Amino acid sequence: MTKQLFADLKVNSTRVNATIHESCEWGCTPDGGMNRLTANDDDKKVRDWFIAKTKEYGCSHKIDAMGNIFAVRPGQNNSLPPIAIGSHLDTQPTGGRYDGILGVVSGIEVLRVVHENNITTYAPLAVINWTNEEGARFPPCMLGSGVWAGHFTTEYGHARVDGKGIKLGDELERIGYVGTEESSFETNPILAHFEVHIEQGPILDKAQLPAALVKGVQSMRWYSLKITGREAHTGSTPMDRRSDALLGAALMIVEANRIATTGELAARGARATIAVINSGPQSINTIAGEVQINLDLRSPFDEDVVEIERLCREGFEAISKLHGLKLEFENIWTSSAVNFDKTMQQCVRESGLELGCTMELTSGAGHDAVYTSKRVPTAMIFVRSKDGVSHNPAEYSRPEDCAAGAQMLLGAYLRYDDHIRQQNPASVTNTADVVKEPVSTSYTELQASEVSE
Amino acid sequence: MTKQLFADLKVNSTRVNATIHESCEWGCTPDGGMNRLTANDDDKKVRDWFIAKTKEYGCSHKIDAMGNIFAVRPGQNNSLPPIAIGSHLDTQPTGGRYDGILGVVSGIEVLRVVHENNITTYAPLAVINWTNEEGARFPPCMLGSGVWAGHFTTEYGHARVDGKGIKLGDELERIGYVGTEESSFETNPILAHFEVHIEQGPILDKAQLPAALVKGVQSMRWYSLKITGREAHTGSTPMDRRSDALLGAALMIVEANRIATTGELAARGARATIAVINSGPQSINTIAGEVQINLDLRSPFDEDVVEIERLCREGFEAISKLHGLKLEFENIWTSSAVNFDKTMQQCVRESGLELGCTMELTSGAGHDAVYTSKRVPTAMIFVRSKDGVSHNPAEYSRPEDCAAGAQMLLGAYLRYDDHIRQQNPASVTNTADVVKEPVSTSYTELQASEVSE
Repeated sequence: MTKQLFADLKVNSTRVNATIHESCEWGCTPDGGMNRLTANDDDKKVRDWFIAKTKEYGCSHKIDAMGNIFAVRPGQNNSLPPIAIGSHLDTQPTGGRYDGILGVVSGIEVLRVVHENNITTYAPLAVINWTNEEGARFPPCMLGSGVWAGHFTTEYGHARVDGKGIKLGDELERIGYVGTEESSFETNPILAHFEVHIEQGPILDKAQLPAALVKGVQSMRWYSLKITGREAHTGSTPMDRRSDALLGAALMIVEANRIATTGELAARGARATIAVINSGPQSINTIAGEVQINLDLRSPFDEDVVEIERLCREGFEAISKLHGLKLEFENIWTSSAVNFDKTMQQCVRESGLELGCTMELTSGAGHDAVYTSKRVPTAMIFVRSKDGVSHNPAEYSRPEDCAAGAQMLLGAYLRYDDHIRQQNPASVTNTADVVKEPVSTSYTELQASEVSE
Repeated sequence: MTKQLFADLKVNSTRVNATIHESCEWGCTPDGGMNRLTANDDDKKVRDWFIAKTKEYGCSHKIDAMGNIFAVRPGQNNSLPPIAIGSHLDTQPTGGRYDGILGVVSGIEVLRVVHENNITTYAPLAVINWTNEEGARFPPCMLGSGVWAGHFTTEYGHARVDGKGIKLGDELERIGYVGTEESSFETNPILAHFEVHIEQGPILDKAQLPAALVKGVQSMRWYSLKITGREAHTGSTPMDRRSDALLGAALMIVEANRIATTGELAARGARATIAVINSGPQSINTIAGEVQINLDLRSPFDEDVVEIERLCREGFEAISKLHGLKLEFENIWTSSAVNFDKTMQQCVRESGLELGCTMELTSGAGHDAVYTSKRVPTAMIFVRSKDGVSHNPAEYSRPEDCAAGAQMLLGAYLRYDDHIRQQNPASVTNTADVVKEPVSTSYTELQASEVSE
């Protein structure tokens, strides 16, 4: 297949967007958002729908012990594992219609375009619905892909409990989605993994671009801090004789912000956030004696996160000393920076170029692609989020942007399949695919065709 | 009675301290603290004890509709209302053995000294146990004295509910303490009100003084603030595109502290505290979209509190503007500065001088004396709190300090009774009281006699 042919194949924007909303029949909320928690009845229904839908386009299905569903369409060389396109159909309890869903629907659309055009890809093609990416009902997040990648065991995954003490394993069993396949990259391998996802941030919206290549995922570290001062009466305790734990916490919040917004670290994309705070005893006239905060540090570079941590520890210690506070500062989670596969990135880059989507981003959030990247070549595409809003019923990506993401994925996928073909010349039997009715397209055309939606 | 005789009368330090702990039999906790919430079974038992105890020293009792108990010992001129000494026997749920209790016990000790020495005071003497000063179970605080002073109605008082929806009126009824007396300064008057209380702050401990005159009570204002930003993903939202409500709140906490610790306002005793904070959605990777804080402002001067409020509003608005936040800033409670009665202060001053207690403070906390001061001459004495700790099982006042406070009260009370006698020369029948076995004493002696306790 030539590069011209890659560009000539087009996704159907109307269909992409209709499929998003079709999949939202189960778990939609009156405010236009979604509440489809892992392994509930709505999750069962959308899984059944996913299987039926992908069956229409020539797929057979593998379901693993974690309920991850692999819809596989054969290629020319079926001795190879499939090239996969995956994301998740579970949502936050007050989530939107695009987070995860867009990625699965983009995979379905690529499958449909390939199928309708009677293309026999070189490697098999898989579309994956990963279980419990959100972790909203069964923490932690990215659990299905994490078990598959060997980061967690299946036993661990099954033993996760929701707020009512119900186990994920039991719920998957109840809805009929504990598959016979082992959840493992070794016994159920894929050749590579593409993921389309909404950006969940404001950069593309600000840049007025529909989609972008994601070069990798930020380095992230989470910390739990406890600041202990001395409870005392707000009225009878002079300002200079206090050990005010909440004042200390406030100074730390301001200091973390200062560190992440200053100098080279800031220029290189540092982020420091405190979003969780619990103060005791929460009495208006008793100075806070104990405050717990969580610190979230990020950067595209592992060494920068290490440096932000060092500066925070130094600054926070100084604040504690000055205000007579005791500080406990514990690292509770670390995720190293991920750099996606160079070849797959190049496929995405070339495909994006055809749509004018030349921006390259680093993902600030974790995705199933983080775990798959530990085991197989992986790449991601981000689609613009209106106002950067996500995990919210107001989450929105325009129809033309959803189509652009799917189109960028299609071009990248076809290029990568071709790359695999080139890598395996001996096993190639046909040098060209059958492509029916190639139609010229561009992002501008897609936009124009979708303004009525 | 001459001034020499005032000084010759002495409280019994061992008895003062034994009585404190005797009264703590009901509601004491294993950690040495107290948990005696208003109108519970322990509160009933300590009320019964208070009545039995004061009956031994010649008192009859009036119980009003709010359960306030007035133990009255007749004087020479029983056409006058009694000079009262009052405080409260209810405690915080994790309170100590001195807050309130010391004040009531000091009153009992004065009563005992007067009684044992066969003194017939000029005006009747009353010891009062005010209901629900803490407001811990039935907010608001200082409720019994507040109803008596006409700040609240009895209906309002009875209708207060605890966390289980139980009404104070019903609970008082259950323990047999809805009295027949109207709760009113008009129908059940007192002539004046003395209150001994622990300082609940570190000033006396720092100054190494056992007790002090309280000149008045600070001006206080409470505010509820809501800061609204925009929830967004901590990883995918650049630092310069955030409206972080918790960062805004942190900057406000720091700014309020700066205002109260700077320049003239600080020199004149300003205090600004934020001790209550609630942030949403409390997810480690979602920037806080809404934060609620309570602000507590104080100063000995009403005009300074007004100025601190102005500066806070100005500073907080600037922070909100800079960070794209919406600010709601509402005053929820105001208590004007109280200046205690000059004559009563002079009585306390002279009594303190005999013990070397010459410090004069402004109370940072509210007490029953705040409400009584609205209706009758009122004065207070503070007793040293070890490390300034209060509302905590670790709350502690040394035996010799408790005795010093009671001694200072005794001298002040006798002086004021004498002042009333001078004011009413026509009705005086005897010009001297019978004083049995006057014994010289001083604070140093009290200290020496108590070091074994």
